[in-house]
Formats: sequence, structure tokens, C-alpha cells
Amino acid sequence: MAKASVVGDITISVDGFVTGPDPDLEHGLGHGGEPLHRWAFSEDPVDQGVLQRAVDRSGAVIMGRRLFDIIDGPNGWNDEVGYGAEHAAPPPVFVVTHGPPASWRLGDRFQFVTDGVGAAVEAAREVAEADEKDVVVMGGGHVIRQALDEGLLDELTLHLSPMLLGRGTPLFDGSRPRSLEQISVEVSSEATHLTYRVSTSP
Amino acid sequence: MAKASVVGDITISVDGFVTGPDPDLEHGLGHGGEPLHRWAFSEDPVDQGVLQRAVDRSGAVIMGRRLFDIIDGPNGWNDEVGYGAEHAAPPPVFVVTHGPPASWRLGDRFQFVTDGVGAAVEAAREVAEADEKDVVVMGGGHVIRQALDEGLLDELTLHLSPMLLGRGTPLFDGSRPRSLEQISVEVSSEATHLTYRVSTSP
Repeated sequence: MAKASVVGDITISVDGFVTGPDPDLEHGLGHGGEPLHRWAFSEDPVDQGVLQRAVDRSGAVIMGRRLFDIIDGPNGWNDEVGYGAEHAAPPPVFVVTHGPPASWRLGDRFQFVTDGVGAAVEAAREVAEADEKDVVVMGGGHVIRQALDEGLLDELTLHLSPMLLGRGTPLFDGSRPRSLEQISVEVSSEATHLTYRVSTSP
Repeated sequence: MAKASVVGDITISVDGFVTGPDPDLEHGLGHGGEPLHRWAFSEDPVDQGVLQRAVDRSGAVIMGRRLFDIIDGPNGWNDEVGYGAEHAAPPPVFVVTHGPPASWRLGDRFQFVTDGVGAAVEAAREVAEADEKDVVVMGGGHVIRQALDEGLLDELTLHLSPMLLGRGTPLFDGSRPRSLEQISVEVSSEATHLTYRVSTSP
């Protein structure tokens, strides 16, 4: 059985924010942050290919609780909208949280992991490897940074969106120094999609 | 006479730093920051082309005082090393400073501007346009951010170096929100060279 890669995958502005200021349930990308994800709705075949391959490779998804609350919220995912929504068998999602919610909308595809991102990666890896796929850590910024700092990521994909947000949720905020190896760059009309191999030692 | 473009041109880490921590005269790129500029010494023809075209287009250069002190310092520029050093007529440099130094090593190619980056752009533009070239704002981070925030930049070129520095001098630190237009992306083995058109209104 092939070892699954663990891939952080997130969209950032040129000044390094994953949301604009003051994100909340109704404005998951913060105020002014919506254009960040323009590439994901683009008809550019480069963007569509990047998105398709990301979904295809993901045998399991990890996300943080704040992101879960947004996608479970009023403007969240449904059968048509959301990562892997159009797939016959969308990947299971492991939500890193201090305590699971009493109830939620999105169903038992979502599981809650209360003992940290390392445990979530372990659980997700088992599922992904059984399916010969990879683990995608899709955010928010805090969970990706934590996975990076704990040396859990094999790859980091950044969808670099051509805008300066000025304020918001930073992806990097005192990360550990680490060398990266640039393994692919794909350019569309809406974004530059950068993938790095993460060195296992800082 | 063609209008000169004003171009911010700087190398950053993936986490947005233009130097590592604690830069000083002996360690202009801070501690651990040297690999940032690996692309500039690379034999990859993409990197060499990017560097050559940047130098060729620059009819005048703007830099901040801290950067000047480094390049005028013990590990600084000389006839062989430095931006445009190999050119018969290297471009004049306008240094933005509160007060000019009593003396300096590098000669009268360097002029000091004490009334702000806007005044430096004005002086540099006049020289560059007479030569049918552009104005390059080459750093440090503070001067580029200031030029960006004051709406003085037409283009921003970021040489994105595959490393996380964790700490250092950030390029963006509460910039004004602004949309960018991606105008070119060049990929080498050492870096991704991104050029954006900067919208004139925030």
C-alpha cells in the first residue's frame, strides 16, 4: 500500500492572508476576501485542472473547527457546492476541534478529532491509504500552519491570488524556518498555483 | 518621450520576508536570509534573463537608507558586484533618507533625497525618461511598501524564493487593500518571478 502524501492546500493573497478582516459565519472569507477564491470558479482550464486534480487525489480531508462552522453554516456546502460535492463518494472530513458540536447539518461524512492535528493526520492517512489517495489539509490557516510546524506536511500548495488584502487571517505568523522545494507552478488568468515539497527537518 | 514605469522589484520568502531576522551591515539579508537571493547567482537561463531585463530597463534606481548603508558597507557593492555593476553606465541611485551621510564609499552615482519617496520617484522618473527607461524601486521592504501605499508603483515584481524564514523584515505589514493584475510569471529552478500591474486606485 503506497504511503499517502499529506498536502496543505490553501488560497492566499499576495500579502499572505487566507481571509480578509473579520471573517464570520456569513462572510467566511472575511470582508473583501471573496475575490481570493475567484480562481476556483474560473473557466480557465488551468484553474479547473488544478481544482480537479486536488479533489481527485484527496482520499481524506482535514480542516479546523472555524472552517467547519462556516461550511456547515448558512452559506456553506450542500450537494452542489463544496469540495468534492459532485463526486459519487466525496472524501471523509476530519475536523480538528476542542469539542465536537452538539449537532450539525452536513452529515456523518464529517468526523471530529479532539486530540490535535497530528491525530487527525493519522486517522485521515489510514482512510486515504486504503483508497490509494492522499490527505489534504484544506485550512484554515491556523491548522495548516500547525501541521507545517509539526512537520506533518509533505507538500504545500498555495493558490496565490492577485490582490493585497492589507488585513485578515495570515497564513504564516512566525512559522518555523524551513526550506522548501518548488515542485510545480501553474499559471492561470486568475492565480498562480505553487506547489512545494516541504523538507522534513527544519 | 515615453512615460517611465515605476517598478517595485524585490525578493521575498514564501512567508513574505525580505530579510531573515536581525539584519545588520555584515548580514544585509539577516541571519539565514542569504538563500533568498540564490536565484540572482543561478546559472538557470530563466533567472539570468529576469535579472538582465530588470537591469536593462532601469534608467534610475530608488532605495532606502538602510539598504544603502549595507551596499556601501564592508560586504557591499563594488565594480564587479552589484546591480548594474557590469554596465558601462550603471543607473543613478536615489537614496531616500532623513539626512545624507557625511561621507560614503560608492561615489556620486548615489544621490540622497530627504523629502520622501514621492520626491525620489519624481527625480528618478526625470532621469529614466530622458534615457527612455523605467524607474526601479529595489528596496528595502519599507520603501517598496511606502511607494505601494502612496500609489507610486505601476508594477510590482516579486522573486518568490522557496523557503520559510519564520522571522525577519516583512514586505507587507498592513498595506492598503489593492487589486493586482498578474502580468507575467517566470519559473526557474530557484524561484518564481511574479510581476503584477498595480491598480492606481485602492
